[in-house]
Amino acid sequence: MKTILIVGIGAGNPEHLTIQAINALNRADVLFIPDKGAGKADLADLRRDICDRYVTNPAGRRVEYAVPKRDAANPDYGAGVHDWHDALAAIFARLIHAEVPDNGACAFLVWGDPGLYDSTIRIIERLDKAAFRIEIIPGITAIQALTAAHGIALNRIGEPVHITTGRKLGDEGVRSDSVVMLDGQTAFAALDNPDLDIFWGAYLGTPDEILIEGPLLEVRDRIIETRSAARAQHGWIMDTYLLRKREG
Amino acid sequence: MKTILIVGIGAGNPEHLTIQAINALNRADVLFIPDKGAGKADLADLRRDICDRYVTNPAGRRVEYAVPKRDAANPDYGAGVHDWHDALAAIFARLIHAEVPDNGACAFLVWGDPGLYDSTIRIIERLDKAAFRIEIIPGITAIQALTAAHGIALNRIGEPVHITTGRKLGDEGVRSDSVVMLDGQTAFAALDNPDLDIFWGAYLGTPDEILIEGPLLEVRDRIIETRSAARAQHGWIMDTYLLRKREG
Ligand SMILES: C[S@@+](CC[C@H](N)C(=O)[O-])C[C@H]1O[C@@H](n2cnc3c(N)ncnc32)[C@H](O)[C@@H]1O
Ligand SMILES: C[S@@+](CC[C@H](N)C(=O)[O-])C[C@H]1O[C@@H](n2cnc3c(N)ncnc32)[C@H](O)[C@@H]1O
Repeated sequence: MKTILIVGIGAGNPEHLTIQAINALNRADVLFIPDKGAGKADLADLRRDICDRYVTNPAGRRVEYAVPKRDAANPDYGAGVHDWHDALAAIFARLIHAEVPDNGACAFLVWGDPGLYDSTIRIIERLDKAAFRIEIIPGITAIQALTAAHGIALNRIGEPVHITTGRKLGDEGVRSDSVVMLDGQTAFAALDNPDLDIFWGAYLGTPDEILIEGPLLEVRDRIIETRSAARAQHGWIMDTYLLRKREG
Repeated sequence: MKTILIVGIGAGNPEHLTIQAINALNRADVLFIPDKGAGKADLADLRRDICDRYVTNPAGRRVEYAVPKRDAANPDYGAGVHDWHDALAAIFARLIHAEVPDNGACAFLVWGDPGLYDSTIRIIERLDKAAFRIEIIPGITAIQALTAAHGIALNRIGEPVHITTGRKLGDEGVRSDSVVMLDGQTAFAALDNPDLDIFWGAYLGTPDEILIEGPLLEVRDRIIETRSAARAQHGWIMDTYLLRKREG
């Protein structure tokens, strides 16, 4: 039986790695490094850097694989994701068959925590589960990186917190204490509630980290400009923000 | 100027410690260990164990302090918390003044992530902020520990997630994909929605971890019995659960 380790590597800072994650990476005969294309080379670099720093097991071989693009043109979002997961499951099955020795272990290095807006768990579940031992190692998420960088708590005292996506923020309308992820469309730009503060962060945990906070209507344009300039410069951007009703 | 490091130590497994947290602990001249009373000695033990394992800086001294109890009898929850934070702020100010050398650093070891249902950040904010440099180090939360242990993703594809407390779950009614924390009253026991699954975990990340999952109405009584037996045995319990609408 082969072991599949789904390892959270934190959200950008190599020092987000936990001891549990480091030990897991060192149990792997094969470390899988996704290659998402030229624009996102920095992200593959972080994974290589993590292996360079923390993998001391000489048996741990790195195997890079190309990640196919999701068909964003598919008008049915769910169906597009489904097809993409199928394609990735076929790639994973082939890689594990070809690269991982019998009774060996392999590790998938997953950005942030494997449970939060990441498809690795679901893709691995499509494989013949009875054939594998699967272990998930938690990781620091972009949410923790965001609040730590801003020096704030995620929740107000005893209050709930909502985690959502840019796409859903548009549909649902905003709730106080919402963390928004996966927002390529700057959904916050369409909000005009004067009582909201925003805590925004991009490239969290990396040397390029950018933080902006303040009343939404005051800092909104600055965030939009900063975001588009940074995106042009790096070729990609990852940003997350917390929206919160101003207190008092 | 003194430095205050607010360090997330993960949710029960000493291997949840990140490299960033270990480095922070090793910068501290003083490591503060809260003592929450006899019933919760295991929790202080975990912090001591973490210091034993990871603090190699010989200058790092441990200082234990007694945590006063919050007045749970105060009918105004907010006011009770406020008074309790005031009392703790006075203790922290005294400890930092007495124990931390000029230009030295101290670390507060915070369970899970400092941003999630924890008061340390808010208490430290009551101190004379201009007198200190404050740094927050993110940690693995009980939420990540829960989903990793169950082998599941936190969110459904592209769907939001709600994080709430036992107290609020009663007020708000349940939403799909709700994580419930701080639930001393087993609020899930009052729900009777046949479409909900529950993923429940106690003592996550520790050798005493207990996991139960299934349709809420089928496993509800088993969770209640398991929980009360475990609580009687240990003298305390920490549990967290995810409620999710069954798919398909
Ligand atoms: C596919 S999701 C993966 C989330 C990841 N599993 C986690 O636990 O943080 C990618 C989204 O996470 C957020 N994100 C991840 N890393 C980030 C970073 N370093 N800075 C800002 N946002 C980040 C952004 O909202 C981005 O759109
Ligand atoms: C005061 S809050 C602290 C949360 C912590 N800051 C975090 O990031 O997980 C305590 C609540 O966290 C949850 N919790 C913390 N550690 C846990 C564990 N090891 N197992 C289960 N639940 C835990 C429980 O819901 C508990 O009531």
